[in-house]
Amino acid sequence: MEIVRTVTELRQRLEPVRAKGRVGLVPTMGAFHEGHLSLMRRARAECTAVVVSLFVNPAQFGPHEDLERYPRNLAADCAFAENEGVDLLFAPPVDEVYPAGFRTYVDVEGLTERLCGAERSGHFRGVATVVTKLLCMVLPDRSYFGEKDYQQLQVIRRLARDLNLPGEIVSCPIVREPDELAMSSRNRYLTPAERVSARAVPRAWQAVRACFAAGERAPDALLDVARRVLEAEPGIRVNYVELVDAVDLTPIARVTAPALLALAAFVGKTRLIDNTVLCPEQVEAAPEERST
Amino acid sequence: MEIVRTVTELRQRLEPVRAKGRVGLVPTMGAFHEGHLSLMRRARAECTAVVVSLFVNPAQFGPHEDLERYPRNLAADCAFAENEGVDLLFAPPVDEVYPAGFRTYVDVEGLTERLCGAERSGHFRGVATVVTKLLCMVLPDRSYFGEKDYQQLQVIRRLARDLNLPGEIVSCPIVREPDELAMSSRNRYLTPAERVSARAVPRAWQAVRACFAAGERAPDALLDVARRVLEAEPGIRVNYVELVDAVDLTPIARVTAPALLALAAFVGKTRLIDNTVLCPEQVEAAPEERST
Repeated sequence: MEIVRTVTELRQRLEPVRAKGRVGLVPTMGAFHEGHLSLMRRARAECTAVVVSLFVNPAQFGPHEDLERYPRNLAADCAFAENEGVDLLFAPPVDEVYPAGFRTYVDVEGLTERLCGAERSGHFRGVATVVTKLLCMVLPDRSYFGEKDYQQLQVIRRLARDLNLPGEIVSCPIVREPDELAMSSRNRYLTPAERVSARAVPRAWQAVRACFAAGERAPDALLDVARRVLEAEPGIRVNYVELVDAVDLTPIARVTAPALLALAAFVGKTRLIDNTVLCPEQVEAAPEERST
Repeated sequence: MEIVRTVTELRQRLEPVRAKGRVGLVPTMGAFHEGHLSLMRRARAECTAVVVSLFVNPAQFGPHEDLERYPRNLAADCAFAENEGVDLLFAPPVDEVYPAGFRTYVDVEGLTERLCGAERSGHFRGVATVVTKLLCMVLPDRSYFGEKDYQQLQVIRRLARDLNLPGEIVSCPIVREPDELAMSSRNRYLTPAERVSARAVPRAWQAVRACFAAGERAPDALLDVARRVLEAEPGIRVNYVELVDAVDLTPIARVTAPALLALAAFVGKTRLIDNTVLCPEQVEAAPEERST
């Protein structure tokens, strides 16, 4: 595995590869966990050359967020990536991505104002801008993103389509700890006690899924179930619990099409997110439902 | 010359060409005049394949602007382009560029608020968005833009650098009528009487250049010269006359580095723009100046 720091080097290394086969890109902010590794494995299985970008993007952090303390460990990340057969690790310094005079931003309207966008003003502008840049730098045939950041995934799908960015956006399922907590680089902020409290987050959507499987289709009733689970855990402060259309993330009156249940909660100072998609067709088509 | 209507066809046609040599792109809104043709000739001289895009971009027109009556003549444009040896004319319908659900925009901050941006709210957002899209669709080695739309050119240079868009941005000099009026598709809106009035626009910057050559470096004095010429012509209503830094388009206290004199004026209902760059070094280095 080679580590490159500049866009010029990156393009030089990719030039000969491109003719031979498919280039895959896994954009990351480092601090790799099994979620990242699952994206690298999928890329490795599908592509001739796998590029992992590692860049803690200042543009997607708010002024009071955790940019400074976001976990960074290049040596460990290199070992992980090498072990997954990654060909190129692109780890640019900040001024390679945002040189002096930088002033161009990408906005995806209507998908970025709600959910995490309401809490984290400017966050998705930062995400959209850096992903546009990374896709233009690498010109990948396929790019891989995790479904844990579901809203981010929809924003990226939309901007890639809207700006005619090259290649295909591939999404990969959330990878979870044995107790179902979604893998996240921010999990390492949690104290042992907070780590126990954090279990309420997956418990919340599991309770909603059970209620949904039993036939409940009213958003208010489903959201109440999630809120009750979260509020029963004293170590947790709910940021939002929402049920929206799974494609355009707009509010729904009833679950008649795939719907996203999205949760964000603070455990101590650490903000965790999680989600699940409720699909009425699948449930209604399930044999046990049909036989009634 | 082949005419293609969809991004898929466009990419299919370019695929085999790309390996053989350089792809050149000339983005246009049609209604070709000698200015456009000069861009096509330059592209033809420098590239293996020349793509001309012809798209009257609704996103760069304001609600009260001339989108509907903007001149369109595909048959004549095809003949012109064919005559210049263009390989592909990409003339997409509006919904190919802005399909249902489109919601992603590119903003270049700080370069777009002044000059034409102050008059034409949202104009440069529309330009930046469509140019980003065209560059991503074509992935050209070189793209060609005219210097008549000087602010647009600086916006495009900046966004191409900031978003790591592929290829090089090449600028070409303004092409003028024999009486020095800058070529523009909008010149065909002018009545014969307005066409005579319009001559005051190039006369204005010519007077400024003469004053600058005589040693004047104070923006107010230079701008007064331009305004006096324009205001002496009853058929003209000044929109703006500004002298700004030629790179970042910010106001200047004195001409000590290349400065852009930019003019916009209404002749009847037609808005015309023109510009010239004043370079202190060149003038000061000129033999007649040195000998004094």
